Amino acid sequence: MTLQTGSLDLMLQYELPAEEEHVIIHESGTIVVPAKYFIDIIRNSQDGIVTVEAKEGSLVVIRSGNAVYRLSSMNAEEFPQMVQVRQPDIKGLPNELLRAFIQQVSFARSTSEMRPVLTGVRCQFNEGHMQLLATDGIRLASRRTNDEDAFYPNPLTIIVPGKNLLQYAKLLNDMEAATDITIVDNKILLRTQNFTMQSLLIDGTYPYVDKLTSESFITVMTVDSAGFLHALERVSLLAGESSLVRMHIQSNGSIELLSQTAEIGDVVEEVPIKELLGDELTVYFNAAYMSEILRAADCAGLTLSFSGPCKPIIIRPLDDAASLYILTPIRSRL
Amino acid sequence: MTLQTGSLDLMLQYELPAEEEHVIIHESGTIVVPAKYFIDIIRNSQDGIVTVEAKEGSLVVIRSGNAVYRLSSMNAEEFPQMVQVRQPDIKGLPNELLRAFIQQVSFARSTSEMRPVLTGVRCQFNEGHMQLLATDGIRLASRRTNDEDAFYPNPLTIIVPGKNLLQYAKLLNDMEAATDITIVDNKILLRTQNFTMQSLLIDGTYPYVDKLTSESFITVMTVDSAGFLHALERVSLLAGESSLVRMHIQSNGSIELLSQTAEIGDVVEEVPIKELLGDELTVYFNAAYMSEILRAADCAGLTLSFSGPCKPIIIRPLDDAASLYILTPIRSRL
Repeated sequence: MTLQTGSLDLMLQYELPAEEEHVIIHESGTIVVPAKYFIDIIRNSQDGIVTVEAKEGSLVVIRSGNAVYRLSSMNAEEFPQMVQVRQPDIKGLPNELLRAFIQQVSFARSTSEMRPVLTGVRCQFNEGHMQLLATDGIRLASRRTNDEDAFYPNPLTIIVPGKNLLQYAKLLNDMEAATDITIVDNKILLRTQNFTMQSLLIDGTYPYVDKLTSESFITVMTVDSAGFLHALERVSLLAGESSLVRMHIQSNGSIELLSQTAEIGDVVEEVPIKELLGDELTVYFNAAYMSEILRAADCAGLTLSFSGPCKPIIIRPLDDAASLYILTPIRSRL
Repeated sequence: MTLQTGSLDLMLQYELPAEEEHVIIHESGTIVVPAKYFIDIIRNSQDGIVTVEAKEGSLVVIRSGNAVYRLSSMNAEEFPQMVQVRQPDIKGLPNELLRAFIQQVSFARSTSEMRPVLTGVRCQFNEGHMQLLATDGIRLASRRTNDEDAFYPNPLTIIVPGKNLLQYAKLLNDMEAATDITIVDNKILLRTQNFTMQSLLIDGTYPYVDKLTSESFITVMTVDSAGFLHALERVSLLAGESSLVRMHIQSNGSIELLSQTAEIGDVVEEVPIKELLGDELTVYFNAAYMSEILRAADCAGLTLSFSGPCKPIIIRPLDDAASLYILTPIRSRL
């Protein structure tokens, strides 16, 4: 039994092997019923046994315990078709890695349809590496594998809608299994075990972002991620909706974080720096964006590099040279 | 240390015995700070130790770990005063019973301000019994104790805002403890251990509802509550927003429940009747309202009594003759 749902933008398919899953098929066929009602009926079934029968005249009869449901079915021929899976383009991506990458990168995408290409995650496959990258113009997140064993015969760059990728990450349940990827026309198919997701790709040119980090820095510091994140969360409590925080990097080896809300009050907290190179510096940034980066970076230590008070801040996990986050400071003053 | 929050309508107070709760008071006084920020600051405190200091010029300094918060405090003299508790009018209501009564009755109140008196729960204390009752005009819920030992020296009838009573039930945490009630002017104080809630009472005349049930019935049936509730939930799946269900009480000893949604479909389920007296009958009612009653009644068996297809349905728990629910049928037809 194959279940399919979705729209032209996103389709999901799950195959239940009839024998394994105790499905008895008396007669084969295809029916289309409203998902919302069908799910509720199955969820509320009395004894876990449900019979589904397609009658003449687009009527589907569902029996469960003493209840008899009669649903109007829709025309199966009008249902969007899923692309036929052929030989995958990318084989055997470990689900655990794929899910981590999706979650560590997608948050930085844009959610505005002003520039549709930025609502996507750029996925690149090349000899020896896979890279996922997203940016909304203010912040950027990039993760890359450095696995010499991985071999993607055809270098591939695609832009996948971020929300669909997050949906896929959320629906993954076996982290030991792997995902195969197939590109057909303007669609991507992600397949793991019995589950397949089909998404439209985003058409367009992704902004050129690969040389953003080749600047010379005036200040470079290393901090403990958890300590920095928790201090930032405490200071953000008074940052209001703008989430504006001032960070003063002091030559005494500590960061002073400050925020304030008119008529309520202000807060100051000092955070120790583990290692500091270069000058004192004061920058203003969106604390919510910075916190998201710190959580996504998901490592014990971080290096933050600064080219000036209004230049993009480059954030790199200490233990992962292939990952990179960028946050553009705010020009306004407290 | 005493914490107070609220408005003129509803005030909450919690007393922390300083020694028991490891509160060290260096100097006594009263400060007023915005609850939202104060809670967030305490919740995010680094090591669980927080110092609070009132400075001159309405400034409150809160220190926690490396963080220093400076909040503008408000004028303590403008803060609403709680009524001074004197000798309670009602003593020692078991919290478990009180919470159950509140939850089993309040749902039937009105949430519309058209008739403010119906947004309240009528609480009556009399020799030997306490009764809570709520109605919105369509349904009515009433629970009553029959405890000959209980003695309320002054018979008392008050109307308490239902949402405040539910709030109190939700904040109760020691079900072994008891609640004392004091009425002062147009306010009620409910007090258990260190916690006190003060609510305004609702002024007005509660509709006369005590003789609603003295009718003669044409049909009386007893059903298993869980079976009836679950069948009703399954049938409601196709009842749409109106939640309209048709119930046909059949002389063969079963109920047929039916609902339908245009263009989607319909559902029929039969439920066995345990005992039936009187005639066959067809009534239409709001399934969501009936389900709420079945859940609130919270007992194994129920008796439903009917005086006619459009007359109020009287629902009584089998094991609790002092409780009563009423649901008015819907006149419309499927």
